[in-house]
Amino acid sequence: MNLLPRGKSADYLVTGHWSERAVEEAQIVAASNGGTVRIAASTAETQFTRVPSQGELQLDAGAAFVHMTSNNTIYGSQWHTFPDTGTVPLVADMSSDFLWRKIDASRFAMIYAGAQKNVGPSGVTVVVMRKDLTDGGRKDIPKIFRYATHASQNSLYHTPPTFGIYLVRNVLEWIQSIGGLAQIEAWNREKGRLLYGAIDGAPDYWRCPVARESRSYMNVVFRLPNEALEEKFAKESTAAGLIGLKGHRSVGGMRASLYNAVTVDDVKKLVGFMDEFRANNRP
Amino acid sequence: MNLLPRGKSADYLVTGHWSERAVEEAQIVAASNGGTVRIAASTAETQFTRVPSQGELQLDAGAAFVHMTSNNTIYGSQWHTFPDTGTVPLVADMSSDFLWRKIDASRFAMIYAGAQKNVGPSGVTVVVMRKDLTDGGRKDIPKIFRYATHASQNSLYHTPPTFGIYLVRNVLEWIQSIGGLAQIEAWNREKGRLLYGAIDGAPDYWRCPVARESRSYMNVVFRLPNEALEEKFAKESTAAGLIGLKGHRSVGGMRASLYNAVTVDDVKKLVGFMDEFRANNRP
Repeated sequence: MNLLPRGKSADYLVTGHWSERAVEEAQIVAASNGGTVRIAASTAETQFTRVPSQGELQLDAGAAFVHMTSNNTIYGSQWHTFPDTGTVPLVADMSSDFLWRKIDASRFAMIYAGAQKNVGPSGVTVVVMRKDLTDGGRKDIPKIFRYATHASQNSLYHTPPTFGIYLVRNVLEWIQSIGGLAQIEAWNREKGRLLYGAIDGAPDYWRCPVARESRSYMNVVFRLPNEALEEKFAKESTAAGLIGLKGHRSVGGMRASLYNAVTVDDVKKLVGFMDEFRANNRP
Repeated sequence: MNLLPRGKSADYLVTGHWSERAVEEAQIVAASNGGTVRIAASTAETQFTRVPSQGELQLDAGAAFVHMTSNNTIYGSQWHTFPDTGTVPLVADMSSDFLWRKIDASRFAMIYAGAQKNVGPSGVTVVVMRKDLTDGGRKDIPKIFRYATHASQNSLYHTPPTFGIYLVRNVLEWIQSIGGLAQIEAWNREKGRLLYGAIDGAPDYWRCPVARESRSYMNVVFRLPNEALEEKFAKESTAAGLIGLKGHRSVGGMRASLYNAVTVDDVKKLVGFMDEFRANNRP
């Protein structure tokens, strides 16, 4: 609504559920505005088990912006090398992996992220945006929906969700207190190494459908030899205090979400449980 | 965005800051949609010191809806008899007086209210809406902005602000536990009786600019004999633990906000302070 001027086109990189939803919403905005939404890349044909490489992107040099989703919660894939969009502004939905590691924010014209994964409670959204994009946003949409409004009013144009922002402040202070994003990233990489290591270490039993170079450090999806064992694994892991390991209903299997609040020890506990389960439950 | 179909007109009742903002946003929506925004009544000429009577409303029988703001926080006025709009759907922003008393909700096609005054923390908005209005809403706006989306998905289409909703649940339970809205209303009427009684009881000193029949039970505005005394009153009341009595900067004077969380005893304390201040600070 802000970034697609009348008659212009925007490029979308489609890598899972949330980028598909973003395309649908953009199409509605474009339809009301004489604009166009182009799919510049999609990995739908391979069931979103990877993100596209730079060579696969069919970018429009005249696009108003390129939109991407940096991590795909349902499919367990993640961008590890961000796309090069030249002079076209790159806009990223980082809701599910914001602050999982240090990034070069200057690569992005806009980053937006719901706080509820790594930085605070649901109900707060962080927006990092280049000033020329806020200033250049559409003026024919309601004032409350213009990023320019919130930027010019120091995010106090509306009554802000104060308690949520207070919790985000506390999380950010905690991140600084433990050594900043360098420490967060070290833990996240260790968590991924442990869990993907366990999966890849027993390929007769566990299987991660995601291509190695696209595997997510936030959402690790994996399958067991059959659905009956997956059902049993979900039940017994829950009973063992390992909550929420059932995969999203649209894809099945298992999913371990390793957001910043999950510790290396938590993942060790999960890996220990997996080893034991595999020993006791042969297909 | 939802309720004004292409080419249709909507009626707005303008009684203060928030209804003026609502008109501005509606005009932007109408401009993009071939629609019209009519001001069916305004009390701007009398500095919003009252709400209009039924006879003053110049309603359009063909309007898509009539919009009103039930309480005006800055000017301290409130609708005590709701307008009769015939068959035209009545839409009310009740952000600042939702649940201050029992109302006949069937009079309204839609009620919306930010939770942050009477029912919970900022970041939650309550919407009560007639099903034909959600179903009949515009389909050419983003799905996330359609009331129909949220109605059909039991308010779980997006990730809801869970902690805020939990606090709203607790406030609603508390209201039930103390005797429901009947008790809340009794306390609010007593609070208003005490404070307006003190103001009207010393007209040589205090002055409420709002017409009696439009006075708000949520926001009581009053003036002192001069601005120097108002400044002193603000300072000394704060020092005495009576916080936030300075009026909004756009109108000056004093404002006591008596939302549901303020007790009858709190208001007695304020009235006691006012009596003492008046005795010690003659103009």
